[in-house]
Amino acid sequence: MKQSLGANPCIYPQPVLIVATFNADGTANAMNAAWGGVCDYKKISLILDKGHKTVKNLLERKAFTVSIADVPHVVQADYLGLVSGNTESDKVTKAGLTWTKSGTVDAPVIAEFPLTLECTLESYDESTERATAAVVNTLADSAILTEGKIDLQKFRPLTFDPVNHDYVALGGKAGKAFHDGKALMQ
Amino acid sequence: MKQSLGANPCIYPQPVLIVATFNADGTANAMNAAWGGVCDYKKISLILDKGHKTVKNLLERKAFTVSIADVPHVVQADYLGLVSGNTESDKVTKAGLTWTKSGTVDAPVIAEFPLTLECTLESYDESTERATAAVVNTLADSAILTEGKIDLQKFRPLTFDPVNHDYVALGGKAGKAFHDGKALMQ
Repeated sequence: MKQSLGANPCIYPQPVLIVATFNADGTANAMNAAWGGVCDYKKISLILDKGHKTVKNLLERKAFTVSIADVPHVVQADYLGLVSGNTESDKVTKAGLTWTKSGTVDAPVIAEFPLTLECTLESYDESTERATAAVVNTLADSAILTEGKIDLQKFRPLTFDPVNHDYVALGGKAGKAFHDGKALMQ
Repeated sequence: MKQSLGANPCIYPQPVLIVATFNADGTANAMNAAWGGVCDYKKISLILDKGHKTVKNLLERKAFTVSIADVPHVVQADYLGLVSGNTESDKVTKAGLTWTKSGTVDAPVIAEFPLTLECTLESYDESTERATAAVVNTLADSAILTEGKIDLQKFRPLTFDPVNHDYVALGGKAGKAFHDGKALMQ
């Protein structure tokens, strides 16, 4: 029997995205965002409240990076969501994370997260608080690759459960896309 | 060592969303979409190629439902992505799925998927192919609830691996959001 839960956009799974930007003084800022995803073959979009330091920074530099938070860094990822860049000016360092300047965009790349999208801002709409960006390059630690491809036996992205506020790991392979449904085709 | 993978928006995880609409003749259509997510407290957005039957339908009825595909229905979910509603007029039935009319929006609710968002269309932008919609109600099968809340011990959503084209289940709890990072606060 189905029950009504009300107007609850409980999309599963949601990602745990670490959005990193440069502050005006050249230190690195980063925040944790769940409302984002792919919006074109080489573009992503993120909903980012205009009050975030991140928004001020990305409007200034027209660039940011997005790292996919992983299980080994769940404490750091959560910290970046708990503390505001408006009150803590050097969050990344405080989290015990390190960074280098991206080689392709004007934004920091946090070293500890093994998968990072380097992005240039295309637009930010104040009314919907939606940023769209071109992904100009993707960096992956060789430790998560097998023959040059991301391997989920090595990479352990976090996911976010929006109802229970848990971080959840990925589990086993459940099927092959563009394949398993062929069993129903005649 | 980090390697460049090029302009590859490999957000992990991605959802497996089943978007259901009514055809003009009152039969149900459904497609499989990965590019979508929450865009406001009671809104979602989806990128849907304008060539899809789904887009024609949702522009006509101004409504659709989004079910979260789950592990027990991976074959049906994949079939809905492999076959076009432009050439197969009764995909949902062909997939062996059943549906009822939503009580809140002018769209079908597929019975077999245990979690469904009932949505009214707010906008569809032809250039970006982005649909935004209000979530007016959410239906959950009581089999996936514990004390009225979605329980990932009972609900097994699929996720999509965009690099390897695998469907991947969720695994175990990896942390508590808005909590674990407190260990780094002073």
